[in-house]
Amino acid sequence: MNHTRYKAIIAYDGTLFHGFQRQNNVRSVQACLEKTLTKLNSGHPVIVQGSGRTDAFVHALGQVIHFDLETNRDCEKLRFALDTQSDEDIAIISIEKVSNDWHARYNPHQKTYLFKLDIGKPRSPFNRNYSSYFPYPLDVKLMQEAIQYLIGTHDFTGFTATGGSVEDKVRTIYRAEIYEYNNQIHFLFEGNGFLYKQIRNMVGTLIKIGNQRMPVEQITKILITKDRSLAGPTAHPEGLYLKEVKYLS
Amino acid sequence: MNHTRYKAIIAYDGTLFHGFQRQNNVRSVQACLEKTLTKLNSGHPVIVQGSGRTDAFVHALGQVIHFDLETNRDCEKLRFALDTQSDEDIAIISIEKVSNDWHARYNPHQKTYLFKLDIGKPRSPFNRNYSSYFPYPLDVKLMQEAIQYLIGTHDFTGFTATGGSVEDKVRTIYRAEIYEYNNQIHFLFEGNGFLYKQIRNMVGTLIKIGNQRMPVEQITKILITKDRSLAGPTAHPEGLYLKEVKYLS
Repeated sequence: MNHTRYKAIIAYDGTLFHGFQRQNNVRSVQACLEKTLTKLNSGHPVIVQGSGRTDAFVHALGQVIHFDLETNRDCEKLRFALDTQSDEDIAIISIEKVSNDWHARYNPHQKTYLFKLDIGKPRSPFNRNYSSYFPYPLDVKLMQEAIQYLIGTHDFTGFTATGGSVEDKVRTIYRAEIYEYNNQIHFLFEGNGFLYKQIRNMVGTLIKIGNQRMPVEQITKILITKDRSLAGPTAHPEGLYLKEVKYLS
Repeated sequence: MNHTRYKAIIAYDGTLFHGFQRQNNVRSVQACLEKTLTKLNSGHPVIVQGSGRTDAFVHALGQVIHFDLETNRDCEKLRFALDTQSDEDIAIISIEKVSNDWHARYNPHQKTYLFKLDIGKPRSPFNRNYSSYFPYPLDVKLMQEAIQYLIGTHDFTGFTATGGSVEDKVRTIYRAEIYEYNNQIHFLFEGNGFLYKQIRNMVGTLIKIGNQRMPVEQITKILITKDRSLAGPTAHPEGLYLKEVKYLS
């Protein structure tokens, strides 16, 4: 059957979602989008594919999805309809048509994640769902030194949650930066893919280094030994944002 | 009985409160603070006085309160205890001791309010509780011209909700500004006091002028005639922030 494939860039506030992926009996971004798209498609079911999952409470500034409709629509009208008919915590930034074999997950892409850490005293009540909080001393220079060791191609087994199904744990990080922004510290990671909880485990380890309860060299040790128990705790999901997905084709 | 009076500057996210003022069976900022202070005061009831009320969903960056304790406490320790034991949507910024006749409401003060209007397309899902939204054309220059006519001492009857109990409706606005900030328009008002819903009615009128559905001269007309029906609609509460309370003594 003929259909048109649409690629959309979306943003969502993850606070009230149990993650991106459709699951029984809980609210997910994917299920919300599919419900609205099905309505816009005269009741015929529409399946949404994302570039990847995000966990419960994790936000997106630029998640990418694709879906198929049997009809050829005006992209801006479709964007407006999907945006205004979706719940207020999902926004549709743009929609474009792509070829029928284009796939949000399988087409090669790079991802950028941002992690926001609030260090203000007191914690801003407005950031409680939008950043993690660490009110203790942090040496930003030490963290900036340590993060350099994460850049490059490494086996990130030591930074992923145990029990994942992915066999190959080698990934490449192209860019990793830490900067101060108002009363926050922002961690930025750009790479060709990230393992389950990898960003949050890297951030939790960097915070422990910044708090001087781990040496800078711990990063290299974790990469070499692949030992998760040497890394810091998993940082909180509410600080994490999927910022951008860049497709190479 | 001897007591010490404490003045505190607090911030709150108004999203989940039915306003500042204590009311039966609903969550209010005042009741939350009183509950925590009573706990910190060995169970002896503590009454909180605010500089004034804020409506449901309205936020505060710098609301001021006062309360009395029978004991003379270290201010920073008290601030830390009250901040960390309060719910996450209330923050205690500072506490200082004041004389026993100092009163958050009755001591002369000036108030500054900020109103945030999101004009981005699409609306950011992260701003849905923290700004109002207006996706239609707005001439900022026209609004900047119109807001000038609100500055000064006027009878603001035409901009307040009908049925208020305050007799004297003359107030002075010292400063009124509009500026663009990212995908938002910010309205700032500083005055010696504001009537019930006055800010939201002024903003609603300015938006209608910016959208060219009212002339700039409408401001003066509303001030002279005191006719509420000539003003624009009441702007949404989630865009409003009590920014600062400055005491003259």
